[in-house]
Amino acid sequence: MKSYLKTLECPRCGKTYDPSKLVNTCECGTPLLVRYDLETLKKEAGPEIWKTRRRGLWRYKELLPVTDEKNIVSLGEGGTPVLPMKGMGKVYGLKNLYLKDEGLNPTGTFKARGASVGVSRAKELGAKALAMPTAGNAGAAWAAYSARAGLKMVVAMPEDAPVTTQAECVAYGASTYLVRGLISDAGRVVREASQRHGWFEVATLKEPYRIEGKKTMGLEIWEDFDGKMPAAIIYPTGGGVGLIGMWKAFSELKALGWLSGPLPKMVVVQAEGCAPIVRAYREGKNRAEFFQGACTIAAGIRVPSALGDFLVLDAVRSSGGTCVSVSDGEILDTWKEVARRDGMLICPEGAAAVRAAKIVADMGLIGPDDPVLVLNTGAGMKYVELLNEKARKLEEGELPE
Amino acid sequence: MKSYLKTLECPRCGKTYDPSKLVNTCECGTPLLVRYDLETLKKEAGPEIWKTRRRGLWRYKELLPVTDEKNIVSLGEGGTPVLPMKGMGKVYGLKNLYLKDEGLNPTGTFKARGASVGVSRAKELGAKALAMPTAGNAGAAWAAYSARAGLKMVVAMPEDAPVTTQAECVAYGASTYLVRGLISDAGRVVREASQRHGWFEVATLKEPYRIEGKKTMGLEIWEDFDGKMPAAIIYPTGGGVGLIGMWKAFSELKALGWLSGPLPKMVVVQAEGCAPIVRAYREGKNRAEFFQGACTIAAGIRVPSALGDFLVLDAVRSSGGTCVSVSDGEILDTWKEVARRDGMLICPEGAAAVRAAKIVADMGLIGPDDPVLVLNTGAGMKYVELLNEKARKLEEGELPE
Repeated sequence: MKSYLKTLECPRCGKTYDPSKLVNTCECGTPLLVRYDLETLKKEAGPEIWKTRRRGLWRYKELLPVTDEKNIVSLGEGGTPVLPMKGMGKVYGLKNLYLKDEGLNPTGTFKARGASVGVSRAKELGAKALAMPTAGNAGAAWAAYSARAGLKMVVAMPEDAPVTTQAECVAYGASTYLVRGLISDAGRVVREASQRHGWFEVATLKEPYRIEGKKTMGLEIWEDFDGKMPAAIIYPTGGGVGLIGMWKAFSELKALGWLSGPLPKMVVVQAEGCAPIVRAYREGKNRAEFFQGACTIAAGIRVPSALGDFLVLDAVRSSGGTCVSVSDGEILDTWKEVARRDGMLICPEGAAAVRAAKIVADMGLIGPDDPVLVLNTGAGMKYVELLNEKARKLEEGELPE
Repeated sequence: MKSYLKTLECPRCGKTYDPSKLVNTCECGTPLLVRYDLETLKKEAGPEIWKTRRRGLWRYKELLPVTDEKNIVSLGEGGTPVLPMKGMGKVYGLKNLYLKDEGLNPTGTFKARGASVGVSRAKELGAKALAMPTAGNAGAAWAAYSARAGLKMVVAMPEDAPVTTQAECVAYGASTYLVRGLISDAGRVVREASQRHGWFEVATLKEPYRIEGKKTMGLEIWEDFDGKMPAAIIYPTGGGVGLIGMWKAFSELKALGWLSGPLPKMVVVQAEGCAPIVRAYREGKNRAEFFQGACTIAAGIRVPSALGDFLVLDAVRSSGGTCVSVSDGEILDTWKEVARRDGMLICPEGAAAVRAAKIVADMGLIGPDDPVLVLNTGAGMKYVELLNEKARKLEEGELPE
């Protein structure tokens, strides 16, 4: 095991922190980013080091923060497939539409990546109890990995969070609380309780390592596409960690000289009922204001305020991407259409991203032959009750037709 | 693409069939097995051919029946992880207890393997409409792959099949019917309707290719354990196709000279409320009688009669394995304990298999240091409502503790 971990750095004020200590954000309140000794890595190895290792995100250990292999907490995360979407591609007039299916991760979502790396590193640095607010899926993932690591886990979520995710957290033995309101309200409760009890707070971007797990999506995409990156990556954006992570991966690969040529246009998708980053993008701002009255069936992107908003907006703008929003009606229709046409039961957030492919194609941001990659962040079977589809009961003696 | 497909053979009467034609069972009613030209493969290649290919079951294309790559219908199936179970291993006194997590397949179950190969081959041979009875998960998987292939799919299942699987089938656009009774009752309805409408019947072992998909679990285990096979493989058994398939994989690897040394003891687990194969095993029979009044929370193994029973019993006996049953109470307790101790939300069928590890250890069939592999056949999140676990509501101003 060799990690090239070097330091923690504030992307706003530049202050650095010792990575061998448990730390949350910078003194200035900004999320910290992990920096690696890329120059040494570049001298000591080439991109072929990863090719022959087993599937999964820990193959990228050089660019991950865990220093001792025995601290790795794994459930088989990462290594998700990139699948052609011929059905929807035909409907949208896109000849090379692809979907990376993050629903094939443990706990059924991409949250497993952040949880695997975040919990592993928290364990390595001696944390005993972790606490987080969640829209549902992050809580379930962190509860699973904490159980596996033998750490106490406290989760707070909106009382209308998806029932499956509630039950998952409890099943994994996490102390699970329902809060009236949104994830931001759960966040206040967790912050206060963590201070009182000395729990390590692992809310989105409140610790530096979750993003390193999410980053591996970017490393995989680079491998999936054999180094020739897609023209655009479309990402359903709540807290935005996945997008920040992928962009960070591309920067690191560039710095290593392992990736050349243009980077993908990064496209943010939010729901019309909760689109703080889309609004900030349209208004030319660098930070997003709190989105009042957030409401969408896509619970994972019902995030009215994101600590990493400025990093998301920066990645979108530097890449020549854009930010778009879709209605709940479009999400539901697309969700059903993807299942029928491409045989994939994705999640509502993923459906928003698929629908956005049509929007950016119509805008001319991508051409009909461009390879376009949509991120499906979770398995649809967790929310199948939202589809409200019923089988038909056969009467005695009746036959299927 | 090169498949070494040779012929279809009846394991009972020895009659062979042309594999280029759509065929169900042998004239004598027995399931047909696919045979490959292993002698030529052995001359032309070694086991290293698979090592560098991408993850997933299609890496084993030489031992799969599809002859033209363009007919492959894939959603990223296979390549599931083998994970140590340190928590339960400690409780059971087993130092090397492992779980292969088939819940990380598309549609959340190992049924995706059979569906991917079965649907691909049906498409290759010109089928237009497929029909099957199901306990739930096979129907969902075949519905997904059929949607992707553009084939009509008809599914019939017991009216009390898991609601998630019902909704999945409908979402994928399958004609989905609920039948009063068990999978055997659904089977009668499908058989009759298929004859009337000319649909290709793809019930368990009613066509030869599903087993080839399941076989890849065996090929993966051989790769996962670097050729040194576990002492025992514990398999939750409904129709038994997975066990038959793994055993077939080991035979083929042996014939190729790519696997040597003792094979794993194959252990069948069934629920006490539906244990036809366990009963036949105890009574020294080669065929299992219909199990009256089948009842268990583990819907996937609520199969009162299996066409491949004699193949299952033969594999168990030739391997020096055994057949055991567990109660629904044990299933439920083990299910919860695995989530808390090892951070895995497995399915009830998988929980039965974990529990069986303790039983065969107590019997002395495996020693405390022996590597033992449990098959978890699906993702627990599909049935999380059965766990009946509730989160706690926080009152206004209350904090987590």
